[in-house]
Order: sequence, then C-alpha cells, then structure tokens
Amino acid sequence: MSILPTIDGLHSSEALNTTFLESLFACAADIEAQPSKYSQALSGKVIATVFSEPSTRTRLSFESAAHRLGASVITVSDPKSTSAAKGESLSDMMRVVSSYCDLMVLRHPHDGASRYASRYSNIPLVNGGDGRLGHPTQTLVDLYTLHKKWGGQFEGKTVALLGDLANGRTVRSLAWSLAMLGVRIVLLPGPGLDWAASFEQRIVDHFDLRLRWVSHPLFAGWTGNSEARIIEPCGLVQKDLFGTEVPKLQSLDALYLTRLQVERGAVSTASIFPGITPEIIENKLLANCLFLHPLPRCEELPSSIDDDPRAIYFEQAANGPIVRQAVFLAALAGQDYSLLPLRSLSAGNNVHSLKECPNENCISRHEGVAFPWRIFGRLRRVFLCSLCDAQLAVDYIGCASTRKFHAQHSLTAQRISPENMHPFSQRTDAEACGFVWGS
Amino acid sequence: MSILPTIDGLHSSEALNTTFLESLFACAADIEAQPSKYSQALSGKVIATVFSEPSTRTRLSFESAAHRLGASVITVSDPKSTSAAKGESLSDMMRVVSSYCDLMVLRHPHDGASRYASRYSNIPLVNGGDGRLGHPTQTLVDLYTLHKKWGGQFEGKTVALLGDLANGRTVRSLAWSLAMLGVRIVLLPGPGLDWAASFEQRIVDHFDLRLRWVSHPLFAGWTGNSEARIIEPCGLVQKDLFGTEVPKLQSLDALYLTRLQVERGAVSTASIFPGITPEIIENKLLANCLFLHPLPRCEELPSSIDDDPRAIYFEQAANGPIVRQAVFLAALAGQDYSLLPLRSLSAGNNVHSLKECPNENCISRHEGVAFPWRIFGRLRRVFLCSLCDAQLAVDYIGCASTRKFHAQHSLTAQRISPENMHPFSQRTDAEACGFVWGS
Amino acid sequence: MSILPTIDGLHSSEALNTTFLESLFACAADIEAQPSKYSQALSGKVIATVFSEPSTRTRLSFESAAHRLGASVITVSDPKSTSAAKGESLSDMMRVVSSYCDLMVLRHPHDGASRYASRYSNIPLVNGGDGRLGHPTQTLVDLYTLHKKWGGQFEGKTVALLGDLANGRTVRSLAWSLAMLGVRIVLLPGPGLDWAASFEQRIVDHFDLRLRWVSHPLFAGWTGNSEARIIEPCGLVQKDLFGTEVPKLQSLDALYLTRLQVERGAVSTASIFPGITPEIIENKLLANCLFLHPLPRCEELPSSIDDDPRAIYFEQAANGPIVRQAVFLAALAGQDYSLLPLRSLSAGNNVHSLKECPNENCISRHEGVAFPWRIFGRLRRVFLCSLCDAQLAVDYIGCASTRKFHAQHSLTAQRISPENMHPFSQRTDAEACGFVWGS
Repeated sequence: MSILPTIDGLHSSEALNTTFLESLFACAADIEAQPSKYSQALSGKVIATVFSEPSTRTRLSFESAAHRLGASVITVSDPKSTSAAKGESLSDMMRVVSSYCDLMVLRHPHDGASRYASRYSNIPLVNGGDGRLGHPTQTLVDLYTLHKKWGGQFEGKTVALLGDLANGRTVRSLAWSLAMLGVRIVLLPGPGLDWAASFEQRIVDHFDLRLRWVSHPLFAGWTGNSEARIIEPCGLVQKDLFGTEVPKLQSLDALYLTRLQVERGAVSTASIFPGITPEIIENKLLANCLFLHPLPRCEELPSSIDDDPRAIYFEQAANGPIVRQAVFLAALAGQDYSLLPLRSLSAGNNVHSLKECPNENCISRHEGVAFPWRIFGRLRRVFLCSLCDAQLAVDYIGCASTRKFHAQHSLTAQRISPENMHPFSQRTDAEACGFVWGS
Repeated sequence: MSILPTIDGLHSSEALNTTFLESLFACAADIEAQPSKYSQALSGKVIATVFSEPSTRTRLSFESAAHRLGASVITVSDPKSTSAAKGESLSDMMRVVSSYCDLMVLRHPHDGASRYASRYSNIPLVNGGDGRLGHPTQTLVDLYTLHKKWGGQFEGKTVALLGDLANGRTVRSLAWSLAMLGVRIVLLPGPGLDWAASFEQRIVDHFDLRLRWVSHPLFAGWTGNSEARIIEPCGLVQKDLFGTEVPKLQSLDALYLTRLQVERGAVSTASIFPGITPEIIENKLLANCLFLHPLPRCEELPSSIDDDPRAIYFEQAANGPIVRQAVFLAALAGQDYSLLPLRSLSAGNNVHSLKECPNENCISRHEGVAFPWRIFGRLRRVFLCSLCDAQLAVDYIGCASTRKFHAQHSLTAQRISPENMHPFSQRTDAEACGFVWGS
Repeated sequence: MSILPTIDGLHSSEALNTTFLESLFACAADIEAQPSKYSQALSGKVIATVFSEPSTRTRLSFESAAHRLGASVITVSDPKSTSAAKGESLSDMMRVVSSYCDLMVLRHPHDGASRYASRYSNIPLVNGGDGRLGHPTQTLVDLYTLHKKWGGQFEGKTVALLGDLANGRTVRSLAWSLAMLGVRIVLLPGPGLDWAASFEQRIVDHFDLRLRWVSHPLFAGWTGNSEARIIEPCGLVQKDLFGTEVPKLQSLDALYLTRLQVERGAVSTASIFPGITPEIIENKLLANCLFLHPLPRCEELPSSIDDDPRAIYFEQAANGPIVRQAVFLAALAGQDYSLLPLRSLSAGNNVHSLKECPNENCISRHEGVAFPWRIFGRLRRVFLCSLCDAQLAVDYIGCASTRKFHAQHSLTAQRISPENMHPFSQRTDAEACGFVWGS
C-alpha cells in the first residue's frame, strides 16, 4: 500500500484541532440559545449507546443529547446482558450493531477499544471512554465549560490537574487538549498516581512545550512535594518564573480534581489528601480558581464547597448533553450546521514482528489480534501501538523495498517512507524475516 | 428565614387534595376517550426514569405514559450499573441527571428519598416508590379505578386493607387518600404486619376521623382476630354500627389485597391466610366487593379468581399508564390541560440538636446528612422527620428570638412561630445550645 | 365448544406460508429501497421488548426496527430486574404489560412461552426466541437473505444444517420453512447434537418429503460419519442421486453454521469440528456455497473467512432490522402496506388426563398449569403439547359424545371430531374418567 489508512470518528483528543473546537463551541452555544431550532435535527436517525462498563451519567448524557435532537436511541447498558457472555468478540458485535444504527457511542474497559471498533463499521463511532486511554467528549465538555467562563481565552491560563493521573482517562484526554490551546498545565499527581513519562513527553514534543518546575506550599499536602512539574508553551512570557531557583506559583485559573480510580487499582496514602476543603480553598493560590471535576466524586471534593461561586462542576455536568448534541451534529449533520470535520487518526500498519502489545489492557490482547503500529513525532520519533498508544521498543527498521534493515535513529532509517517500514525490536527478528543488515 | 420553604412535586399522598384529584381524573378520562389528542402533548420533553430498586411494571407504566404523550425517555433500570457503585450520593446524582431531562421519576429503597432528591433539582420530581414511605402514583391509579367503578362517589364507601400494612407502601399511601375522600377504612393486618400506631393516629387527627371496632367471622382467618379497627368520618351516619358492643360489619365495597413484602422482611404465619380463595369470595360480606391488588401477586390472590367480575386488578393495572399520563401533564403542561397544582409540602427545618433520624431506613442516614423536621397537627402537635415522616421525640422547644426554651406542650411553646422553633429532646441539649429555661 | 380456538401472532415457523413470505419479502425490499416512506408508519405506537434471557443482538435489532418505523419502545432487558424476582408468573406479567403497549416482543427461556403468553393478551405477540422451540423472526431473516441471493428461487436448492441441531432453536425453525419452500436439507449434527427423530418425522410427514442418505468425505470431519441424512421433496428430480448405493453429494448451495449452545448443555467432541476453516472452504462441495450463521459465533466460524464473498453472515445480520420492520408492519399495519396475514395456530384443548407435559422445559411446567394438546398430521396422526410441541404418549381416545373410548389408531377413533376427543395414555385413565371401552 502506498497511502497509510486513517480512521475517522471521535476516539481521542488527538482528533481535535482548534478550528474544529471553535465551530463545535459555536454550535453548542447556539443550541443553548435556541434549543428548539435543533429539536428535529436528527429526526429518523438511530443512535446506539453500547456501554460495556457501568455508567449512568455519561450514558444518560449521550441519550439525552440524542433525544434533544429528535434521534432515537437503542442501548446496551448492562455488561452482563450482552453477547459477550456468549463469547462474542468486539469486532463481531461492532459489525452487527453498526448495521442497526446511524452512529454508535461505545464505552469499553480496554485501551484502544474505540479505535479498534471503528475499523469494523461504516458508521461514525464516538468514544464514550475506553480503558485508561480516552474520553474525548468529556474533554469537550470540560473545555466548553472553561470556554464559556473565560470568553474563549485559553492562552496563558494556568490549569492544575490533581490526583489520579495514572488511571484517570479524563485527565489524560484533557491534558492533550489544554496543551493544544496554549494553556500552562501544572501536574499534581498523588504518590504513585503519576502518568507514564512517555505520555507526557509526547505532549511536550508534539506541541513544542517546555517542562519546568514550580513550587507552592499547598502542593506538599496534595502530592507529598511542594515542587511540581509545569508544561507550558515555549514562547509564553513567564511573569512569575525567572532566575535559576524553582519559582513560586502565584495563582491558578482552574483546578481539575479527579477521583481515585479505585476500580482500576488506585490506592490513597494516609498522609496525602489530593483534594480540597473549605480551608484549602481560602488559600490565595486559589483566589480566582475555578474548580472542575468530571464526577462522580468522593472525599476529594466535599459537598460543603458546592455553593462556592468557583465550584462549577455541576454547571460542567449540565454542559454534557449540550456538547454531545454538538458532537452528534458534527458526525451526522455537520454540513447542515457548519461543523468542521475532526482530524483523522493514523489507522496504523499491521506489518511487523513485534509480538503482542506491551500494554496488558490493550484491546488487541483481549481480542487476540495483532496490533498495528504508528509513528509519532518528527525529531524524536517513537513507535506506538496505534490502538492504545503504548510505546513500543523498536531499535531496527527494515525497508520493504530494499530488504535491508537499519538502526532506528540512523539517517537511512529516517528516509524510509512509512508504507515501506518494517519495525523490529531485535536484529535476529529482522534477519528471521529475511532482511539484511544495511549499515 | 421568616417563611419556611416548601417542596413541590408528587412525593406522597399528602400532596393530593380533592380539587387536584377531580381535575386529574377528568384529564385521565379524556385521555382514555381521545388518546390521539394527547399524542404530541409533551413532544420534545425528556423524562428520566431512575429506578434504584428492581421494577418492571411501574417503570414500564411510566415509560409507556411518556411515549403516549410524545416525550422521550432516558432510563436507569439496573441498580448495579449506576454511579452509586462508584460511591455517588443521591444528591449528586440528582443534581446531574436533573440537568439532562425535564422531569424525573425516581424509585429508591430509602424512606424519604423522593422529597430529599427534589431539593437538588429544578425540575419536577415524581415519586415512583421510596422505601416504605410513599407510592403516590399507585394511589392515583387505585383511586382512578374506584372512581370509574363508583361514578366518582367515594363518600360512605367501606374499603378494607388486607395483609402487609407494615411494609407495603402502596397501602399506606392509599389509606391517606381514602381518608381524605371520606371513605371508611377497615384495617386487616396480618399478625405482626400492622403499621405504626403513630401513622394511623396522624390520619385520624388530620382528617378528624374516629376509630372504632367492627367484627366479622372472616376477619379471624385473615388477622387471627374477628374484630378489626375501622377509621371513618365522625359525621357519617353509621347504619350498621350502633350500641356499645362491637358491631358486625355487613358488607365491603372494596378489598385491597397486598403481597407480603418478603424483601422487606415480612413473614407469614401458617395459621393465617391474608388472602382470598374461590370459597372466601362467596361470603356475603364480599357480595358487592371489588378486589384490587397493586400486583405482582403471590398466594394471597389465586388466578382462579381472575374471571370473577369483582376482580378488577388487571383493569387497575391497565389504568397505570393513563393516570401517569395525566400526572406528567399536570407536572409539565398543567396550564395547557386545565390541571390544578398539587399541594406543596413543608421542606422542613434543619436547625435542631436531635441527632440522627430514629428511622434506620431514612434517606438522611444513608446520605449522612442532618434531617429536617416539620410540625404535624394543630391540636395534638407532633414533630416529624420531614423526609421520612418518622415521629421525633421532642419534649422541649427553644425560641430563637428569646433564647428561652419551654416544655413542648406548654402554651408558651405553642405560641413560638415555626421559623423560630428549635426542638430538643432533653433539657441538657437545650442548655448546651445556650437556651435558658423559660418557665 | 364446537370450534377449537386458535392463536394469532408469530410464535413459530408453522405460522408461515408461502404467500405470507412473498408479501413480507416484497415489503422488506421496499423498505430497503425507500426507507423514508416508512419512517412514520407506526408513529404513536408503543412496542415492548421483554427479554427474559440475555441478548444484545436480537433485542437491538427489534428496537432499531421499531424506531425506523417511528414507534416508541419500552424494554425489559435484565432478567434480574423484573417482577419475576418477586415471584410473578408469565401470564400475569403478560396481562399487565400488554395493557401498556401495542405489540410485544418476548424472549423467554422456556419452550412454548410465546404461544402461552399470547393467550393472556389482546395485542400481537412476536416470539423473539423461546427455549429450544422457536425463533421465527431469525428464520425470516435467514430466508430473506437467501431470497435476495437466489432471486427468490428456493426450489431445488440444497442447504446443509451443521452443528447443534439439538439445542439450537434457529436451525429447527429454519428447517421447517426450508422444507415448506421445497429446499433439500442435509442434516449434519455433531455427535450427540441431533434433534429428536419425532421432530424430523413431523417435517417429513407435513410436507410429504422423503428421507434418504447422501455421502461426502467432508461430512466425516463434521459429524463423525461420511454419510448424512437428506430430506427432500418427493417429486424433485435427483440428478446426483441414483442407484441403490448411498450417492455422493456434489454441491451445497448454502451451509448454515451454528454455535454449540453451551448454555443449554451442548458439549463438543475433540475429534469433530462442526465448523469451517480456510482449508475446508476450498473443497469443491462448497464452491458455490453461501455461508450463513445466526451469530454470535465461536470457533466454528473463524474470522479469517469473513472477507470471502461466500461469507454472508454479516449481510444476514444487517437484514435483521429490515425484516423485523416488515414483521411489525404485518402485525400492526398490514392492511396499509398489503401484508398478508399469518396462519393461525391451534390453541389446543385443555381437556385430558395426560398429567404434565413430558418436556421438562415446557412453559406449562414452569407456570404450574395444565398443558393443552393438539393433533398433528393426517395419515400418521400424533398428539403434541400445543405449547412446546412435545410428542405425547396417547394410546386411547375417548369420545365426549358417546362416552366410549377406542384405540388411537382405530378407524372409530379417527372419526371422532376434534372437539369431542379426550386422549388417554392408559385404559385405566379412561375408565377412571367414566369412559367405556368402545371396541
């Protein structure tokens, strides 16, 4: 093949771009202003919500959005009442159910399920959360909430992400988009709850950011350390960051709280409280800070704060159906409502000898299929599982045209066109495939 | 605050009044006569049915009603697939889901859940059954069924309530409304299945009824005792009740059967059969007696009776969606269809030192919040949990204005205006709050 | 009674006839050609899907069909969230829910549940699968798929049924209809997975077929035997069958694969593979053979075959909602869309002394009711449970008019009119009922 295939649909934040966001937010604002204008926009369409993980909020939010546009809904909400109990694969389920509807919303416990499933359907697929990987409509809801509060001005704002960065898919999905929008991101993971360095490195590389450290006494109570990483646009004027010492952070514009994802193995430490209290929010750092939370919440966000004007998480929740209406319109009636398309993602390439994906929760391992790889980054090129974004150990690259293989970072390897690449982790693997050492 | 807050919505039978019933029944009759007139009455509205207890019948009845009016439905029918599994409170769930819909129907295992939940939403809430407390739409269905059979004439009719009065919410909810409509109510609880005396006392006090005893040989097989309590309007001419002996009851106009609520701990006694058989219904007492049952049924109502013309429980079930259509219209389009408003309930007052609600199943205890109290009755004033109606032990009342406290039944205490009242169960509690003994 | 009652609705393949199929397929084809013409055909109708067994595919297919016609849907998808948990009978559930909707789709674990349930409702009932007995809409989907591929020409085609004939309801339902359409049917059950001889005998008798044996080497790997039964129209010219030896089968037009119904007790044998592989489908026998499967699938149908043009099971699945739209139109708007009526089934006769149905999974045993019997066949008359089609041991027949009883196969017994028949399995039973030996 000469052109690598791509996949459409809303699978992860990588599909978002600023022009799409602008048109989506304009549409959402118009829906809020004139709901009746849209009440029959998707009349006659059938939307399926397939939730293979327990959920109330997200499913109802999608279904409410569908009904508000005049669409019908078919739903699978109980994981145990599904064909999976009869041993059915996700690909089969997808092939069948996609012939019953015009759009599917999928929630699934395995990383990359959304991208994988979209290969087996001709209809738009919207990711309602897959494993630890993505939850892009939650990110759109989060961004729309901030967009309204900030009058569309994201650049230069400082947003802190607090708590379970390792297991929370909403916070990972959000970080990517905030970086794209020029926001400075302060990372405040609880002990043992940080995300993979390679994930952060990809954000930094992709958006050409710089990583620095800032400090604040509040951080110690949250993370066990008064210093925290911040990633920010290189070109941003840093009024409160200068000199060689770790500068003190003066203020936050928003704090994104997360629940410990206990069901994914997160454990809390007694001495640390990655949350807020009526006392904590009196701190000057938070004087103008909006509090967001994807909900449901636990101890990290006591209800005694609910009436504070900075607490906007219920407003955030109420934006759920509105933003999801705009998503449905973008997927099914984009041309009628001036919604711009999403960015296509690389569908990846299945040709390799890399064995199974290193991520145990990758959908490829649960479906028993070979994973496709893709390339990420230009200067610092990495190989990823194109389903779950796990970073792959690739040291050699063969060229399908010359039948030679080269060191991954060699200039020769850099010049191999993507459709000719054959990645290997070991020399012996390349030789076993009939490739000859090229330099 | 100078005016105590109230809550709207259909939470318990206390919200019903005769003028509301008249307009509701007229609407229901019109829906039966001209269903197509109403087929788009709620077009564009989204109704959520949130059932945190298993149910088929009631949920489907509500959902059918919604669809018959052109509304859309979003639903949570599996308690285990909900955010509650992630530790979410009812108040949070309510705040979020109420922003997804125009009306919510809630079924919940805890007493007072409906009133409690309505505090966290701006949309109408309809109680689909909460714990042992209320099931007001079932009561409306029961009343509408009798209304049609009796040509709207309730006064002077005699209705017996048989079986599990302790745990059945439908029968408690019905009793309140029958009393309001001037019906004589014969109470036939199985052994150990009587309701709380305080509940009955409240009905008697509120509607100014008298309590007497009547006897009939059939009663012994039902309750273990041939004598039974009857509550009736004081002014009613008692043709079959005179003298000082316990009079024999001559006939029943309706018999309301109930299932033992085994899932709430009800136990049956071998020697007692709180139900009917083909032999029992030949008894003269039941010659013109309609048999009602909220269904589902067990042994108390054998199917061999189904073809008897007095057996109207399937007709009663068929009235379910019709009455619920009228309820939805009352809540969402009352002015368009000449439906009168419900009576508002007291939302209660949270200021007290009464510790937790004495009712273990009260929603306040499961949500971990302070319960609000309210006053019930004028002559014989009692204090109730305004969520679950549990009677509170209040012996002293402080006045927030004078900072003095008084014996509950003293004349001084009677004169304290409700918004200034601070109830106490013990003198020491009042003193600990800085109140001084006032007389 | 002088006329035996019948039941309407789509309960089993016996209700189908060729004129109905022609009109249904014409309607389905028109729906495919002009979907928007039908988008409001059932506007205002409420369709209930009651699934007392886990299912995703079938339920969603029905619900999608309902929505595509503008109908609303109420659904019960979780067996555990139903009133059955409170001890409710199917008949009660049916009586109640049928008053909430205009049509019901029922899936149930017990044989004959659909026919039984239809006695308790005034609305059309569509069988979505009951026990091992029937799955008539799946059969319609299968037939429509072949109808399109074969240009409506079924006569003379050869279709093999492979795998679990004992437990799979789809394959039993399909066999009946294929026989009706003049198709030759090759039976390839796995070891221990054959259906009852009496079932096959009924097909043979009813459609006046002949049973022969054919052989092919492939069969041995599927069934353990290279010879297989074939049932075919007597009048069909058998080009490849002649002589006295077991003839070799030359080609198959379609192969219907089935999953081992492990949840109903099916066990696979290590040496046998009742399925296909990329190698097997290269066999000349299958050169022009369409592969069908009701899905979900297991090992019998590897995904490596999916791209083969003969693999039409996903096309088959996609026909699901279309055919079910036509079924709904036939039931609710047949006259508007020129759909012919189904054949009525005998509702059976409850008068007998035959004790309980011999089939342990018969709905009559689970509901604790007497089963009705019916007569099947003219020359070789058998008695069946008219709910589950189990064959009954009837050796004597009493005549209600003469009060005499006779041997089942006697000429006198043949002359008793159906409404006077009283079947007995033993002389003593007949005598105990006051019948006298008649010849």
